[in-house]
Amino acid sequence: MADLGTVKTQFVTFCETPNELLLKSGEKLGPITVAYETYGQLNADKSNAILIFHSLTSDAHAAGFHEGDKKPGWWDPMIGPGKAFDTDKYFVICANVLGGCKGSTGPASTNPKTGQPYGLGFPVVTIEDMCVPQKMLIDHLGIKKLMNIAGGSMGGLLAQKWAIMYPESTESCILIATNTRHTAQQIALHEVARQAIMSDPDWENGVYYNRTIPARGMAVARMIGHITYMSEKSMDEKFGRKLMRKEKVGYDFSTDFEVESYLKYRGESFVQRFDANSYLYLSKALDYFDLTEETGDLIEAFKPAKCAFLVVSFSSDWLYPPYQSQQMVKALKANDLDVSAILIESSYGHDAFLIEVDNQSKVVSHFLQRFEKKSNAVRS
Amino acid sequence: MADLGTVKTQFVTFCETPNELLLKSGEKLGPITVAYETYGQLNADKSNAILIFHSLTSDAHAAGFHEGDKKPGWWDPMIGPGKAFDTDKYFVICANVLGGCKGSTGPASTNPKTGQPYGLGFPVVTIEDMCVPQKMLIDHLGIKKLMNIAGGSMGGLLAQKWAIMYPESTESCILIATNTRHTAQQIALHEVARQAIMSDPDWENGVYYNRTIPARGMAVARMIGHITYMSEKSMDEKFGRKLMRKEKVGYDFSTDFEVESYLKYRGESFVQRFDANSYLYLSKALDYFDLTEETGDLIEAFKPAKCAFLVVSFSSDWLYPPYQSQQMVKALKANDLDVSAILIESSYGHDAFLIEVDNQSKVVSHFLQRFEKKSNAVRS
Repeated sequence: MADLGTVKTQFVTFCETPNELLLKSGEKLGPITVAYETYGQLNADKSNAILIFHSLTSDAHAAGFHEGDKKPGWWDPMIGPGKAFDTDKYFVICANVLGGCKGSTGPASTNPKTGQPYGLGFPVVTIEDMCVPQKMLIDHLGIKKLMNIAGGSMGGLLAQKWAIMYPESTESCILIATNTRHTAQQIALHEVARQAIMSDPDWENGVYYNRTIPARGMAVARMIGHITYMSEKSMDEKFGRKLMRKEKVGYDFSTDFEVESYLKYRGESFVQRFDANSYLYLSKALDYFDLTEETGDLIEAFKPAKCAFLVVSFSSDWLYPPYQSQQMVKALKANDLDVSAILIESSYGHDAFLIEVDNQSKVVSHFLQRFEKKSNAVRS
Repeated sequence: MADLGTVKTQFVTFCETPNELLLKSGEKLGPITVAYETYGQLNADKSNAILIFHSLTSDAHAAGFHEGDKKPGWWDPMIGPGKAFDTDKYFVICANVLGGCKGSTGPASTNPKTGQPYGLGFPVVTIEDMCVPQKMLIDHLGIKKLMNIAGGSMGGLLAQKWAIMYPESTESCILIATNTRHTAQQIALHEVARQAIMSDPDWENGVYYNRTIPARGMAVARMIGHITYMSEKSMDEKFGRKLMRKEKVGYDFSTDFEVESYLKYRGESFVQRFDANSYLYLSKALDYFDLTEETGDLIEAFKPAKCAFLVVSFSSDWLYPPYQSQQMVKALKANDLDVSAILIESSYGHDAFLIEVDNQSKVVSHFLQRFEKKSNAVRS
């Protein structure tokens, strides 16, 4: 399979005064810049577009390489020529979410009213709010109906909400390792991460831009995240009780075990690439997510949806356990929707949606083929 | 069932110069004070004694009430007249571990060489090291052979090690919700907690006594702990998505969900009752624990053991999952030891060993009766 080669992030701005976006909280926000990337070519009747939603700490850079980078985008094994989201056939779009820190408007952006970064002056945004500017992007690109929307983890929350908010806007929807409402344990894990960040004296109530970043709190938050992304089994297979110093424990508080070193490394590298306030805002949006919030019932919540669904879960995912996907499938089916579901056996935990490329690719490409309009494909 | 009423912690000191204890790390430590409590009466031939080992953040105060306290000791539903560890029949002992902060020598104790608290000058102690002063206590009480030793979680690690180190010293051993070696996930969860404490600027490399304690780091560490002590199901049953403000989310970073409030409360109250350095030392001792360290093999590791075993695990315990108890049982049986095992169905997660009193009591009292010497019972 070929690579996408070099790709570039693009930007578009909506909601400029006086057309600010009315958020779910009642607050208004504008202007809103959306950072996005596209891969492949939009066909003549614009019927081959796929919108991919990213997870909590990902971004618009889903595939290909940025100039000079050695690592490709976060879902590169799934997106490209001949891959599951086949850019020889489809036009794939991925945008950074509202509230993020990778080019779209978020707490690190400049507040036009103060000339300073928003910080905690940024309004709390919900998954629903995040969908709106992405819909504006799709309209801006002149796409009336997407062939597919897809997302894993947080991305799956956006995809569900989108399918309900804009039922006429997509043929199909792929939901991977996700759920319909955050449970107490999911909220609890996020709250500990938030407390770790907000306890760091360098956080300074969110006013740390151009000063010292709350690196220690962020590192701890990321370490917690990483434990939840792996399974007990995958951690044990990868690290077990392997030691940093040959066969010898130090009897001190330096790093003895490889798993400690790995977590520290992941924690420290995350600090450099992600904004602490964005972590607070996005994790909060996830915790607020409850599809049954207004209807009180999941079947009722999915009622407006019209597209076909593919629901993928992974056996060892304990952050978004398969039973939660099953509840989703049941509610979709109760609405007489076209639903395919698959539980993929994997020991990789929640991270499986980024790692289990082979099995996922088969299922995804098979599903997508159903919605292709052959006559209009860029290449046949 | 009657209560034990008011109980008192007692103290005894061993290893005074020049008889310092040689630790596994090669360092020496002394004097060592052991804080302990006893419940019931030792019979004439001293054959009715049971030694109970506590978990990570517990202490010698296992049952009864301290003068003026409204809450009893940590395992009070299991220890007392007519209870599982029946103090009408048995003499029950519980001692605070070496490295702890509830009366036994630990990092908050005064270093006789400096006149200051040890802090990080305290040597790293292992589970094996913790057993030694408790054996001195048993010798000091004139008990040649215990009727039983028992422990849940960290207490189970001490009990296993004891059964191997002092095979002639006990008739039986009860291991609850525990395992034979800390896995990568268990190490990882502890390491995040340690990083949270050590990242708190008030920790000051362990020199915070009589200054500001590292309360924020400790609270985060405890919150992580609490999530691991509960199961996903018990969290959802207890809290679900229940809100603090009636039916309304705040769209801000204050406490929205009850589960957030609960964790904050548990975190903050913990700070007042536990020493941060002790948390570092004890969690490190748990992580160093590997019964196969010297033998490379679990069956071989249990070879010196001679007593009868009861192994109890709980279905929803994901911190010390039942499969780990099963490995233990298999290795014990391979040594032709007298082993009983039970998996108790429970939704309470790891905390089940403190909560599932009825089922546990039946199993424990039934097992203990086998080792009673009727003729010598205090009361018949």
